[in-house]
Amino acid sequence: MKGIFITLEGADGSGKSSFAKGIAKELAELGILYTMTREPGGTEIGEQIRDILLDNDHEEMGFRAEALLYAASRAQHVKEVIRPALEAGHVVLCERYILSSIAYQGYGRRLGEEKILQINDFATDGLMPDLTLFFSVDPRHTLARKAGAPDRLEEEGAGFHGRVYEGYMQAVQRYPGKVVIIDATKPEEEVFRAGREALLRHLRGE
Amino acid sequence: MKGIFITLEGADGSGKSSFAKGIAKELAELGILYTMTREPGGTEIGEQIRDILLDNDHEEMGFRAEALLYAASRAQHVKEVIRPALEAGHVVLCERYILSSIAYQGYGRRLGEEKILQINDFATDGLMPDLTLFFSVDPRHTLARKAGAPDRLEEEGAGFHGRVYEGYMQAVQRYPGKVVIIDATKPEEEVFRAGREALLRHLRGE
Repeated sequence: MKGIFITLEGADGSGKSSFAKGIAKELAELGILYTMTREPGGTEIGEQIRDILLDNDHEEMGFRAEALLYAASRAQHVKEVIRPALEAGHVVLCERYILSSIAYQGYGRRLGEEKILQINDFATDGLMPDLTLFFSVDPRHTLARKAGAPDRLEEEGAGFHGRVYEGYMQAVQRYPGKVVIIDATKPEEEVFRAGREALLRHLRGE
Repeated sequence: MKGIFITLEGADGSGKSSFAKGIAKELAELGILYTMTREPGGTEIGEQIRDILLDNDHEEMGFRAEALLYAASRAQHVKEVIRPALEAGHVVLCERYILSSIAYQGYGRRLGEEKILQINDFATDGLMPDLTLFFSVDPRHTLARKAGAPDRLEEEGAGFHGRVYEGYMQAVQRYPGKVVIIDATKPEEEVFRAGREALLRHLRGE
């Protein structure tokens, strides 16, 4: 495949979305073809799955069903959006991917990293990112900053979000050289500059 | 767990539902506690997943997303309905289970038996049926008999349904002693009698 697959990972409120918006503008100015997308969702089928996942009425949702729904949404996303864009030579920037599932389902829900990797390897038919930017900040702090009513996952307690963060930190160590860790507790411009530099370095093949 | 888990497998139109209805009456008369259920669906979350799966507008649905949605629905079904009923000592009769996924997704969609088993082992946390009644009839014949508009899966061609049948025949051979094959091309009363006998024999511990 001719494109480059970049994933943006980190807790809600860590600055992934602001970064994505800012960098899209720069890539457009540089004349680089890109596709910006995010999970869960990204396709019509994925959005329907997302509605099931984030519905606050679904208190009875089992952890295994949840993990499989995220994987199903990802499978559709890879098939319908990510692979075609990569085949067209685009830089694909995707908010959240397998690392999120490892952190939230593998560690947060205690389903195990190996099982979650197995399911996601099936879902994506083995498609892994060329580069991951991990916006590192303890989610127990960022959640407090978020406006609006919490969704089903945000309503989880501090224990859950602590395990998620620990999961991220464990998982990023397994992708040496492919993950750049960005300190997202820094001011927004500094976070953006660090992410931008890592991304452009990768695009230049450094 | 104190209950007994029985699955009814076979193509649409093979007589699973008629059998389920008839045997439920008998179990009630015998004073046996039972739970009758079916896949996909069986829970509120499962019904929402079912709507996504069988929607004829979803021509873009990828085979991997499809397999994961079936597994997600099953995970919820096991957690919310099947396990609690087994723990309450019920005989659980379930139309369609893992064997259907092996036949339709593993063989029909050519995703491979091993991968489908892996995903479903995760979905069900290893819960396998005590006994499977397989209503054996080539689905290329039974589909022609079914009334009403076809759903997304029924619209598949004869090649697909031929592979599904082959998948069932391959997969049942891997569960020696746990699958009873019933010739579903026979008259309805005869099919019912054969299924009833196999079920009661199992309940008596023979």
